[in-house]
Amino acid sequence: MEFDLIELVRARCALARADVRVGIGDDGAVLAPPAGHELVAVTDTLVEHVHFPVATRPEDIGWKSLAVNLSDLAAMGATPAWALLALTLPAPDRDFVERFAEGFAELAAQHGVALVGGDTTKGPLTITVSAFGFVPPGKALLRSGARAGDLVFVTGTLGDAAAGLRFPFEGLFQSPASAEACDALRARLDRPSPRIAAGLVLRDRASACIDVSDGLLADVGHVARASGVGIDISALALPASPALLQAFGAPERLALQTTGGDDYELAFTLAPKHEGIVLHDLAKAGCGATRIGRVVAGAGVRLLDAQGGEIATKRRGWEHFA
Amino acid sequence: MEFDLIELVRARCALARADVRVGIGDDGAVLAPPAGHELVAVTDTLVEHVHFPVATRPEDIGWKSLAVNLSDLAAMGATPAWALLALTLPAPDRDFVERFAEGFAELAAQHGVALVGGDTTKGPLTITVSAFGFVPPGKALLRSGARAGDLVFVTGTLGDAAAGLRFPFEGLFQSPASAEACDALRARLDRPSPRIAAGLVLRDRASACIDVSDGLLADVGHVARASGVGIDISALALPASPALLQAFGAPERLALQTTGGDDYELAFTLAPKHEGIVLHDLAKAGCGATRIGRVVAGAGVRLLDAQGGEIATKRRGWEHFA
Repeated sequence: MEFDLIELVRARCALARADVRVGIGDDGAVLAPPAGHELVAVTDTLVEHVHFPVATRPEDIGWKSLAVNLSDLAAMGATPAWALLALTLPAPDRDFVERFAEGFAELAAQHGVALVGGDTTKGPLTITVSAFGFVPPGKALLRSGARAGDLVFVTGTLGDAAAGLRFPFEGLFQSPASAEACDALRARLDRPSPRIAAGLVLRDRASACIDVSDGLLADVGHVARASGVGIDISALALPASPALLQAFGAPERLALQTTGGDDYELAFTLAPKHEGIVLHDLAKAGCGATRIGRVVAGAGVRLLDAQGGEIATKRRGWEHFA
Repeated sequence: MEFDLIELVRARCALARADVRVGIGDDGAVLAPPAGHELVAVTDTLVEHVHFPVATRPEDIGWKSLAVNLSDLAAMGATPAWALLALTLPAPDRDFVERFAEGFAELAAQHGVALVGGDTTKGPLTITVSAFGFVPPGKALLRSGARAGDLVFVTGTLGDAAAGLRFPFEGLFQSPASAEACDALRARLDRPSPRIAAGLVLRDRASACIDVSDGLLADVGHVARASGVGIDISALALPASPALLQAFGAPERLALQTTGGDDYELAFTLAPKHEGIVLHDLAKAGCGATRIGRVVAGAGVRLLDAQGGEIATKRRGWEHFA
């Protein structure tokens, strides 16, 4: 790692935590996991052009590179603690690194996450973050526990980030969206809010959980496959933000909500008897959720219209090598 | 992650370990750190062109991407356990991924490391591995413990990997090196052997330790800075392999040994009273070490000739953005 860059990042992101014995600056970090807990480890990479537009602000890239990882921790029901950052840059751009670290640190501080180590290398702009959190033994939320009869929910709203990706490039010419709506959608793309508090509520009750990163249908498909069940999703039930409703008509909106991806909401399944208490606890945690379908015997995911007929979909979500 | 690729990697690398509660295939891995130990976490990135030549075999890239991380764990005195893999590829090249996984798995099996999660993305060939190991509380080997009067050692030999990078491009025309010597040097570049066993010996005795990745002078410079001491290195003492001796004359050899980098040996400091027992225990662990200098009051690193005069060096080692 180039030493000036290390210092820039360390100065901004090395939050003090008592469980960090040795942080940035040696060959590795030395960490003290809490006794009697399991460790949850996740990693996700962002590549310029592929995962964010070229003109994205460095602060937003920093935020998002941590957010997509914290979203995975949220989906496991974990309490976040530490992160590692591998930053590949075309040149030792001090301004970029400072602004990147600022966005990263802003989200890290919100969730008490300490950056404990990393690597900077020269190459095409690519960011890999690994993040770590804790769960009580056996309490991690998995994809594999959904059972026929369970209900399906999603936190927040869907489709905003994918819509944000279209502004200002296409949207201004296609729709009557206000500048304010465009900004709101773009903010969902650039600064996703990992649903950590919701994951903590869900880990005691949900039968399965996943974060919606590749697109709703693709992601609930992972749950269906891992659980050995089918999932029916009701198109009319899918939650939409006011900005999305203003900016896009129904057919395009449905495509964005079901296959757009980058939502970083949690989709989860629940035995019907838990619905009341979970929605209550989620609301208390500041996170709404909407019932969007049910788990059925069988396999695969079906998107249903108001009459219960299946809606054909061309693509299921984000495919990295499509 | 693209599902076929995940399966290819999982089939080869998901070593069974009792402390892996949930491995590849959910939003995150669920791991059970051993009670009463500290966790050591490291991460390193390899970028094509920058960290390995374009024609490097996929098996060797897989091996090396893990090796450079295990080398960091070795330098901390940690026992390796788990790894995460973030693989960015220009295209979903099945053959590349199979061969990459084969090399990765070969080294992982040698050290009992389970691949527990990862991400595959589309983009310029870049590999980030994070690796995790354990140390007894307070036993991690740091860079900061060297004291004036300590002796300085290095495991194995220096300069081979940097020499290997020159073959077959330049070497064949410059030197009388045999094909066998070229192969030996190239193997040190492509398949470094992380000094895990040496790290375990050293963690009870060494005052400071670092892995030699950027070049000897640069890396012992990190130790000097972190410890607040100076370090004198004796040029004549630096260990060279038979292949290096055959392929390069003295001046070029010295440059390769002191600034070439990519050695993945351990440089460490030791109170003189421990020299005998440590060299004995290292030999028992199958790893030779050579005394190459001493820690002195002051600051910085000096490379000394047989008369104790300082040898001027132009560059100190690998600088990522030089």
